[in-house]
Amino acid sequence: MQTAVIGLGKAGLPLAGVIADNGFEVIGVDIDERRCEGINRGKNPIPEEMGLDELIKRHGGKDLIATANYEDAKDCEVFIIIVPLFTDENNIPDYRIMESAFRNVGRLLKKGDLVVLETTVPPMTTDKLTRVWIEEESDLSLERGEFYLAYSPERIMTGYSISRLREFPKVVGGVNRESGVKAFEIYKKFIPNLHLVSSARIAEFIKVIEGCYRDVNIGLANELFKIADELDVDFYEAREYANHEYCHIHLPSTGVGGHCIPVYPWFLVKEMEKRGKFSHARLLRTSREVNDEMIEYWAEKIVLECMKLNKPLNEVKICVKGITFREGVKELYHSRNLALARLLSEKGLDVYVYDELYSREEVEEMGLRYLEPEKADLVFDCIGLKIDWRGQR
Amino acid sequence: MQTAVIGLGKAGLPLAGVIADNGFEVIGVDIDERRCEGINRGKNPIPEEMGLDELIKRHGGKDLIATANYEDAKDCEVFIIIVPLFTDENNIPDYRIMESAFRNVGRLLKKGDLVVLETTVPPMTTDKLTRVWIEEESDLSLERGEFYLAYSPERIMTGYSISRLREFPKVVGGVNRESGVKAFEIYKKFIPNLHLVSSARIAEFIKVIEGCYRDVNIGLANELFKIADELDVDFYEAREYANHEYCHIHLPSTGVGGHCIPVYPWFLVKEMEKRGKFSHARLLRTSREVNDEMIEYWAEKIVLECMKLNKPLNEVKICVKGITFREGVKELYHSRNLALARLLSEKGLDVYVYDELYSREEVEEMGLRYLEPEKADLVFDCIGLKIDWRGQR
Repeated sequence: MQTAVIGLGKAGLPLAGVIADNGFEVIGVDIDERRCEGINRGKNPIPEEMGLDELIKRHGGKDLIATANYEDAKDCEVFIIIVPLFTDENNIPDYRIMESAFRNVGRLLKKGDLVVLETTVPPMTTDKLTRVWIEEESDLSLERGEFYLAYSPERIMTGYSISRLREFPKVVGGVNRESGVKAFEIYKKFIPNLHLVSSARIAEFIKVIEGCYRDVNIGLANELFKIADELDVDFYEAREYANHEYCHIHLPSTGVGGHCIPVYPWFLVKEMEKRGKFSHARLLRTSREVNDEMIEYWAEKIVLECMKLNKPLNEVKICVKGITFREGVKELYHSRNLALARLLSEKGLDVYVYDELYSREEVEEMGLRYLEPEKADLVFDCIGLKIDWRGQR
Repeated sequence: MQTAVIGLGKAGLPLAGVIADNGFEVIGVDIDERRCEGINRGKNPIPEEMGLDELIKRHGGKDLIATANYEDAKDCEVFIIIVPLFTDENNIPDYRIMESAFRNVGRLLKKGDLVVLETTVPPMTTDKLTRVWIEEESDLSLERGEFYLAYSPERIMTGYSISRLREFPKVVGGVNRESGVKAFEIYKKFIPNLHLVSSARIAEFIKVIEGCYRDVNIGLANELFKIADELDVDFYEAREYANHEYCHIHLPSTGVGGHCIPVYPWFLVKEMEKRGKFSHARLLRTSREVNDEMIEYWAEKIVLECMKLNKPLNEVKICVKGITFREGVKELYHSRNLALARLLSEKGLDVYVYDELYSREEVEEMGLRYLEPEKADLVFDCIGLKIDWRGQR
């Protein structure tokens, strides 16, 4: 069985590596030619991913051939699509990358082939959109059973993706029954903890609501943190003793960053609003707002703290420490700490950033100002378990 | 050590039983004289509480003396107050019962005695209110170290209270350091899994945020249930596969009933609103609204289902099955199923109720109409894991 993995990013490459490591030939397709060349030389482009170095060294250029050319995947029987889905400034998905991937795959598709989407998408995407893209390009019909189409959401977490693929429960659902069964049988060969669910749509919904659970619970933690602060109670001590087997209060933060959690609730909110069901997604929308507004809260706290220092406000050197969206992942997408630094700058404060993962040059290339925390008057340390934002007096 | 437990209700009586069972003399004070007489004869008034029959039989009238007269507790050194705190229709606590209990205890208090509040209360109640009540009645001063005052929230759950007291983590915090240490040392004698936290206020906050976690997560489950229904996805199947060690999506319902969860978020919401911090409790308020409005959602679903039956709408016999606020607990306080039955009645529908725990007579005494589910055209079965509301056709 030859398998194509379309998209060799943070989710696609570990999957491609795991499939190859289970004894299958994999053609990995990615638009980034340099990335492909590196992989084929055994070089892992995601060093922070535990265990991936070994897999790429063992299979890159051998059982796992990376290419920018879809034609190289023409003999594959299984096509796994795991490309990014970005959203615009109104939180509406922009399907262009995904559509292009599906149309390219559609052109290669042969009778009996299986296509599986892994990217997190709004429910009904696989059935309503991707099916049409394939059918338009391939002249094959799903209804006549000429190809199979399923959805199996990636559940990776950068740094732990390999162990997630090997141990964590994964679900798969077909656009029709045959597709579900076919995808389950094939995925079972390289995913040990696999569950067949009743449709692609439910598999899509499962992934999205996991994200909603996280976003709402981070929103709750942020709200309780603000209340604790107002009541002069140590939130972290309270959380430690409130949590037990039935209570899972999350950690507060500057909000939720990254490509995933802050995006998924909008998939449901926008769909409900489109249908006029405004009251069906009030909690999801409120959590999004609470999380995104946390930078306003922190900005105010920081200004109040600056006022305690014996300096004109605009001369207090503020260092926002930690600008990645998550600790240890060199990725800035929707980083709330960065948004906070920008917000403070807009207010006219003297703001710098610092992050262990970025050099001075990299920081300055982004148009930001770099400063070691030791040289700042106030350090806002927002990465890690505990937010520490008090001034260094 | 003689200990007084003020309030022998669902939370107080199991605690009194457990203290007695640890070898201490307990004076239980309750305004209900008949209840006291029964307890003194070894009769357990809460049969659904596992293990309590045995404790009351063993200690009732011997190491555990129940009385309606505070004077009988005058030789006690420890006073545990665990009386109900009701809220009015605007969700503002009505402290009259609690104030009366504290003033009565205050009159008996001797130098060196310890008072511990267990009722769930808004943060700062122990320090700001109960302390004043005691000092006004006793002429003792907390500041001079003449008595000790602490807070240790009950974490019982009717049916499992004894095992919770014996196994579950319990916290205690003092209004001052000495009170915390004193209460910890005494409670340690009968609560094995006990944790001293840094203040009474934080102990109060801990209990309230546990309830907030539950309410927000039930609100989330209700919201996701409505979205799943709109998208034609089986919520229960999705929940089964979405939940794993990092995801704990709750069960949907007709809302949240009982004395606890629907009340506690208001403690924080009202306090924040009083301080003008409206944006600090938006998620808590939204969850309360989502949960309380679930009966409107179900009423609409039920009407739509009735329309499918071949009968005039006002002749469809609807039976709401399960009217207690929680399965297996004969208690109607803030029951949302009962609220739903009333809402349907107000709409002019032909509504009946049924509950295994209530006889026809008991139901009719409450001004409700009783009907066995078999005789109804549509049964709304809302107790238990899965809501079943489709018509019997």
